[in-house]
Amino acid sequence: MGNRFDLRCEGCGYSLPKEKLMGLASSSSCPSCDRALLNAQYDLRGDRFLDWKSQLLHRKGSLWRYWELLPITAWETVVTFGEGWTPLIPLPKFGRSIGLENLYFKDERQGPTATFKDRQATVAISYLKEQGINRIVLASTGNVAIAYSAYAARGGIQVYAFFPAGVASAKIKEASLYGAKVMAVEGTYDEAKAAAARFASDQGFFLDQGIKTFAGVESMKTMGFEIAEQLGWRSPDWYVQGVSGGMGPVGVAKGFKELKTLGLVDKIPALGLIQSAGCAPIANSFHRRETQVSTVASPDTSIATLATGNPGLAYNLLKQHLDRDGGDCAIVTDAEAWEMVQTLATTEGILVEPATAVTFAGVVKLAQQGMIQPQETVVINCSGREKDVHSLSF
Amino acid sequence: MGNRFDLRCEGCGYSLPKEKLMGLASSSSCPSCDRALLNAQYDLRGDRFLDWKSQLLHRKGSLWRYWELLPITAWETVVTFGEGWTPLIPLPKFGRSIGLENLYFKDERQGPTATFKDRQATVAISYLKEQGINRIVLASTGNVAIAYSAYAARGGIQVYAFFPAGVASAKIKEASLYGAKVMAVEGTYDEAKAAAARFASDQGFFLDQGIKTFAGVESMKTMGFEIAEQLGWRSPDWYVQGVSGGMGPVGVAKGFKELKTLGLVDKIPALGLIQSAGCAPIANSFHRRETQVSTVASPDTSIATLATGNPGLAYNLLKQHLDRDGGDCAIVTDAEAWEMVQTLATTEGILVEPATAVTFAGVVKLAQQGMIQPQETVVINCSGREKDVHSLSF
Repeated sequence: MGNRFDLRCEGCGYSLPKEKLMGLASSSSCPSCDRALLNAQYDLRGDRFLDWKSQLLHRKGSLWRYWELLPITAWETVVTFGEGWTPLIPLPKFGRSIGLENLYFKDERQGPTATFKDRQATVAISYLKEQGINRIVLASTGNVAIAYSAYAARGGIQVYAFFPAGVASAKIKEASLYGAKVMAVEGTYDEAKAAAARFASDQGFFLDQGIKTFAGVESMKTMGFEIAEQLGWRSPDWYVQGVSGGMGPVGVAKGFKELKTLGLVDKIPALGLIQSAGCAPIANSFHRRETQVSTVASPDTSIATLATGNPGLAYNLLKQHLDRDGGDCAIVTDAEAWEMVQTLATTEGILVEPATAVTFAGVVKLAQQGMIQPQETVVINCSGREKDVHSLSF
Repeated sequence: MGNRFDLRCEGCGYSLPKEKLMGLASSSSCPSCDRALLNAQYDLRGDRFLDWKSQLLHRKGSLWRYWELLPITAWETVVTFGEGWTPLIPLPKFGRSIGLENLYFKDERQGPTATFKDRQATVAISYLKEQGINRIVLASTGNVAIAYSAYAARGGIQVYAFFPAGVASAKIKEASLYGAKVMAVEGTYDEAKAAAARFASDQGFFLDQGIKTFAGVESMKTMGFEIAEQLGWRSPDWYVQGVSGGMGPVGVAKGFKELKTLGLVDKIPALGLIQSAGCAPIANSFHRRETQVSTVASPDTSIATLATGNPGLAYNLLKQHLDRDGGDCAIVTDAEAWEMVQTLATTEGILVEPATAVTFAGVVKLAQQGMIQPQETVVINCSGREKDVHSLSF
């Protein structure tokens, strides 16, 4: 049993042979035109999906329940902790306080390493294992390194993780507990990426960047699938996420698109994209109606996981989505985020990391601005648990 | 819509009117004979459950999917984060290394506060809210206080939590982040319980102890329900859990018993009960075939969550189970537990707190002793995530 899918460039139409995926230099951009990202395309026609909804009733509560639409060909090497199928939880009290009647959060804290990066890790590590890779180098602001290291331990793969300055020591420690070799780089996230690339090249080890986008998009699709299924095969009006590199919401939107193609939902939600004030290239460029993103050379935020200054092609994909299917961006200060961490803990009993609090604070702004209407159904990506409670001062 | 259930004494047959439950002095022991625990009994006859298995297919992935067998009468006050329905994960690599072919763990780390106490909290806090209680006093070695505090925040209830010496500061801090008033007692768990009882009495606030056992047993039943459903409506040969007060496995066993009565499984699993060497009253008393437990006055273990020196009537219930349905106890040293934390993280990518590592190390011993046979299906309760990674030295 193996899935058929094509890796196709949305710009020039080039189709990449799957065996060449491992050699991709960076972020899955098309090796033919370099102007667009490669996109996994599945056969959504025919009768394969006629009975899908009732088949799903009998499947496990994991993102692998949607295996027909995941980019894996060898099932015996899938590395899984039963991740995904996280609860979709109503927030009536908090919702009322900000004037929203149908607010939910998707609780990605409830996963094997307590962030939504578990989704990416199960797909990426399974794919690497399928390909026989046993050493992998990556740069990370924390959550990806932790998730990849846990899955790699289970899959028998050695991780080498490079961290920029500003990452909480608890995160570096957790990756190392799973057996990853960890390197703290005195520099920005971009500098950590460069150090990782040099090390991988020197040692001849696999650099994660090549399949990062591919695994990220395909795994985050399942967030869209789950939300639709949990709402009774219906799309919400809004899906809201905190944004760093930007490929997460691209993936979620792709999930809703595939469901719409299959006739399982009737629309694609508007996207709410929330960024940190110290690093908001996507939000600022979108508000200025720019066709290409203006990058941020020196991100200035205490929230390391949101510090991607150059989202690259993700901006174009997201702008396209917002222009066509609706949505908006909002910007949140670090102070607003830390205050929201406290509000969520004391009023709703939800302990989140500041990157998630950014998202919640952004929803408040979009509601205040009237972008989100009171009766609309809104789903917030609650992306991760705060792991170092000693870092919180309230 | 409300459930019918009776609270009945298994010793003398006394049936407690539900409205009196709130006034119970301690641990749900029978106010008539004081020799046994009150037991929630449901009507398991008739045609209510004929179609249950197929109804369950359409229900949410939460322990509330089994609402017919939970002790709640008012559904509008249920406080939930979608807890339960945690993954049942195979451990082929670790299993092979200890000679077991069908080893699984139930990953209770994947919950709203990352321990299995979320189950107890959702039932207890929902019950208290149903009763109109808005202040609650408890003593805890950490996990219960955290779980109750999170659910209480969501439910609008104020928690006062008393902690004994030796509880990790990260745990006390987390409870306080949810808005609980926290008190660190310089003494044992028993002394913290006494301090909590005095405070509750002085202030006229509700003391959790009265419904603790009841909520603990009824909520832990769902662990049994889930394991059976996840195995395809089959009981495992063994269910293994680390034991402190002992009511957890009593609850899980009750779950399997109710399923057997309903004809949904054909047997009740053997119980593996694992204790810490510095506080093993149940294991030691069982190995000496004692009819009453010999308590431990001064628990001597670094694992605070396993330091209940006097399990009381839970011993009798567990011994009864082991004598009738099979099972055994094992004892694990703190050093063995800390080593197992490292083994699980580096070889399987699972980060657990030491109380959980005790359970895994106990399974190794039961397998080595030949108590657990190689081909038997064994489910380990993976009870919680390690929350303070800085406390780990490897």
